[in-house]
Amino acid sequence: MQLGLIIGHVVATRKDEALVGAKLLVIQPIQPDHTPMGPTIVAVDTVGAGIGETIIFVVGSVASRATPHPEAPIDAAIVGIVDSVDCAKSGGS
Amino acid sequence: MQLGLIIGHVVATRKDEALVGAKLLVIQPIQPDHTPMGPTIVAVDTVGAGIGETIIFVVGSVASRATPHPEAPIDAAIVGIVDSVDCAKSGGS
Amino acid sequence: MQLGLIIGHVVATRKDEALVGAKLLVIQPIQPDHTPMGPTIVAVDTVGAGIGETIIFVVGSVASRATPHPEAPIDAAIVGIVDSVDCAKSGGS
Amino acid sequence: MQLGLIIGHVVATRKDEALVGAKLLVIQPIQPDHTPMGPTIVAVDTVGAGIGETIIFVVGSVASRATPHPEAPIDAAIVGIVDSVDCAKSGGS
Amino acid sequence: MQLGLIIGHVVATRKDEALVGAKLLVIQPIQPDHTPMGPTIVAVDTVGAGIGETIIFVVGSVASRATPHPEAPIDAAIVGIVDSVDCAKSGGS
Repeated sequence: MQLGLIIGHVVATRKDEALVGAKLLVIQPIQPDHTPMGPTIVAVDTVGAGIGETIIFVVGSVASRATPHPEAPIDAAIVGIVDSVDCAKSGGS
Repeated sequence: MQLGLIIGHVVATRKDEALVGAKLLVIQPIQPDHTPMGPTIVAVDTVGAGIGETIIFVVGSVASRATPHPEAPIDAAIVGIVDSVDCAKSGGS
Repeated sequence: MQLGLIIGHVVATRKDEALVGAKLLVIQPIQPDHTPMGPTIVAVDTVGAGIGETIIFVVGSVASRATPHPEAPIDAAIVGIVDSVDCAKSGGS
Repeated sequence: MQLGLIIGHVVATRKDEALVGAKLLVIQPIQPDHTPMGPTIVAVDTVGAGIGETIIFVVGSVASRATPHPEAPIDAAIVGIVDSVDCAKSGGS
Repeated sequence: MQLGLIIGHVVATRKDEALVGAKLLVIQPIQPDHTPMGPTIVAVDTVGAGIGETIIFVVGSVASRATPHPEAPIDAAIVGIVDSVDCAKSGGS
């Protein structure tokens, strides 16, 4: 999993039918100290997350397991909303 | 998923038989503000996308689920055409 | 697998139900000489690891196999606590 | 999928028995304008590709599907020989 | 698959029970000209490789297929010992 900040959402009318009804959010991956890290990704929300919230997300074939469509073509999903991150140091490049 | 811009297509006569008939498009991954991000990839189109359109695509083993050949050797697929991306900020390094 | 140093933990009350009870630790990937390498990740602990310990972790769909929930949306897991790394040279670039 | 240029081959007598008979080629990933992009990889050839040819390859668990051994430990396979790439622009950073 | 040089081994007494007995080696990924490329990884040896040998390894969910424990949480495995790499050029950035 990675930490991320929700910064937006995507509207896509024409899409794979397994994605109909899915909420697609734009995530900026972050470090524990909230430094942005790497490119944004688009993930399916499964926990009722909203803009500005810090979340944890998964990528790859396990992502669809978090959704009502475990066989959907989904490679990223938000799986938790972060209350706090307690960190001795926030990691490096 | 990632956002991408369709910038071309690939013609390959000799290929895995599960790929016969598949439309292979060249995608430039982009950030929400349309900044190019990272190397191009080649993805199977499943939503009728065309050159110049902004799309969302998936990578990895889930990609083939979007196609008529879920057991094909496909690791990238276009799963939606983007109408709009609403973003507070467009992400980082 | 990769080597990592445990540097913190994540508290997330609202999360996928398959993650309830999972201990979520923040890992800084490291080289054999303990140089930090790349962004931090969040992994499920399955071996009783603690802050400051050097561990090995796996990523991707195999990670959930290390947990009591092999079908959970988990993409990173700690699978061992490192006693020692014997290395001729510690790797590069 | 990614575009690549075949630049060599690997000889390995001692190997996993599911790889016996597999042709292992060295690929330099490239952009549509043939700029090299990222480290080389070693892939199993399934389409009769040769040195100097431009190909498309897949990575990850789907790669073995292109081979006669779908349960083999193979994470990269050549799945097509490229005739042409028609591109508006050849991609970015 | 990628080319790598074996540079060390990892001792981990406390680990996932599916890893008991597994030989865990430290690999420096290399280019065909033996230039180091990217961070080291830890892989399960399945072919009797030793320090200083050039090998090919796989990553991801297919890695465990090379081991006696196809359902183990293993994401990297050595699958061949390289006799020679014949390369027109050794690849790029």
